[in-house]
Amino acid sequence: MSSRIEVVAFDADDTLWHNETLFRDTAGRFTEILSRYCSEETIAARLFQTEMRNLEHYGYGIKSFTLSMIETAIELTDGEVSSREIAEILGFARSMLNHPVELLEGVEETIGALESRYRLLVVTKGDLLDQQSKLARSGLGDRFEAVRVVTSKDRATYESIVAGLGIPSDRFVMVGNSLKSDVIPALEAGTRAIHVPYHTEWAHEVVDPSVVDEYDITTVERITRVPEILGGWC
Amino acid sequence: MSSRIEVVAFDADDTLWHNETLFRDTAGRFTEILSRYCSEETIAARLFQTEMRNLEHYGYGIKSFTLSMIETAIELTDGEVSSREIAEILGFARSMLNHPVELLEGVEETIGALESRYRLLVVTKGDLLDQQSKLARSGLGDRFEAVRVVTSKDRATYESIVAGLGIPSDRFVMVGNSLKSDVIPALEAGTRAIHVPYHTEWAHEVVDPSVVDEYDITTVERITRVPEILGGWC
Repeated sequence: MSSRIEVVAFDADDTLWHNETLFRDTAGRFTEILSRYCSEETIAARLFQTEMRNLEHYGYGIKSFTLSMIETAIELTDGEVSSREIAEILGFARSMLNHPVELLEGVEETIGALESRYRLLVVTKGDLLDQQSKLARSGLGDRFEAVRVVTSKDRATYESIVAGLGIPSDRFVMVGNSLKSDVIPALEAGTRAIHVPYHTEWAHEVVDPSVVDEYDITTVERITRVPEILGGWC
Repeated sequence: MSSRIEVVAFDADDTLWHNETLFRDTAGRFTEILSRYCSEETIAARLFQTEMRNLEHYGYGIKSFTLSMIETAIELTDGEVSSREIAEILGFARSMLNHPVELLEGVEETIGALESRYRLLVVTKGDLLDQQSKLARSGLGDRFEAVRVVTSKDRATYESIVAGLGIPSDRFVMVGNSLKSDVIPALEAGTRAIHVPYHTEWAHEVVDPSVVDEYDITTVERITRVPEILGGWC
């Protein structure tokens, strides 16, 4: 492929701003609350199980995570967790929702370098209100032509986004930290993709290395290298 | 105005399918759980207060409602509500999320009468996953050109939707049960609107009658009258 890129779409959580660390910190505080009932490993494993079981019904985001923490607390303690402890868990939701949005290093300068040359989008899973609120608080809201909050990121999602833009798929590039959500399904939809790994990854997003080997993936250590890669694709 | 309508946008909850009744039924079951702690009136009033306080942070939808029920239960009982009772409230969320989508009377035939002549949209507040899931389960999913799930329905929301469609605002009509969300802000954005009241209304959506008097509002008792109204506007 040698078409000029027209649209650069960014994932949001752990690509533009820190997110997984906030969930991990909160999971740590949750574990502390329950530590008098069972081991840390058990708590972490059961919370993850509950999240996965609820994903189809609740979707992604802080509210879903909070409902899963409450459910896990009640189940794991066989109903002995107190309502005051549950109130603490509700407090975690509020502090997550109000947590400052911390941009990743180099994001601002990368957007600055791209905005005059490409149409910029955000394509993110998660809770609609939560993602819009984070984008507004990030200070980057008006740098993007549009924000698409989607319930899943599969091949059909990318096909539909590209079709809606009215451009050939190879003029679209998806930039994100998740091979599973940002890179592989975008490549399958015929777009281009750049992988910018985050230092930690939610277990749900981990991909089997043998699957990764099937794709020719462009990976950069830092988002600031994206403009140069795109330049090379002209 | 005498332009021909090109796009007919429908609200979803309580316009295409029943919704408020499900929330009311669930609130009734919630009240029963807490009835040994305080009066029904107090419970209802406190739940509504909690919902309103959380709206800005949580947004609309079943997950938000569930978190507000749990918070209300803990606060109202001063922490005495048991974790088993909280587990029951979590169960309400699951049964609401899995509740069959019941179309309102006349919806199917109305969509059938309109689909060959107009572009049809859904414009709804609420939780993204939940609204998409309801649309899919309603069996109407492929009758609409697009579904816009938005965090609020104000004048700017309608202006942005119309701008995105690339049509003059008077070729767009919004059909919905809420004067506050569907009718008044759409009229303010220069579009047309048809009000189809639902038999019951969430207190948050109630509008002062003196405000309503400022607008020339087209109201029909049943959605099946919409095609005829639109025909008259040609």
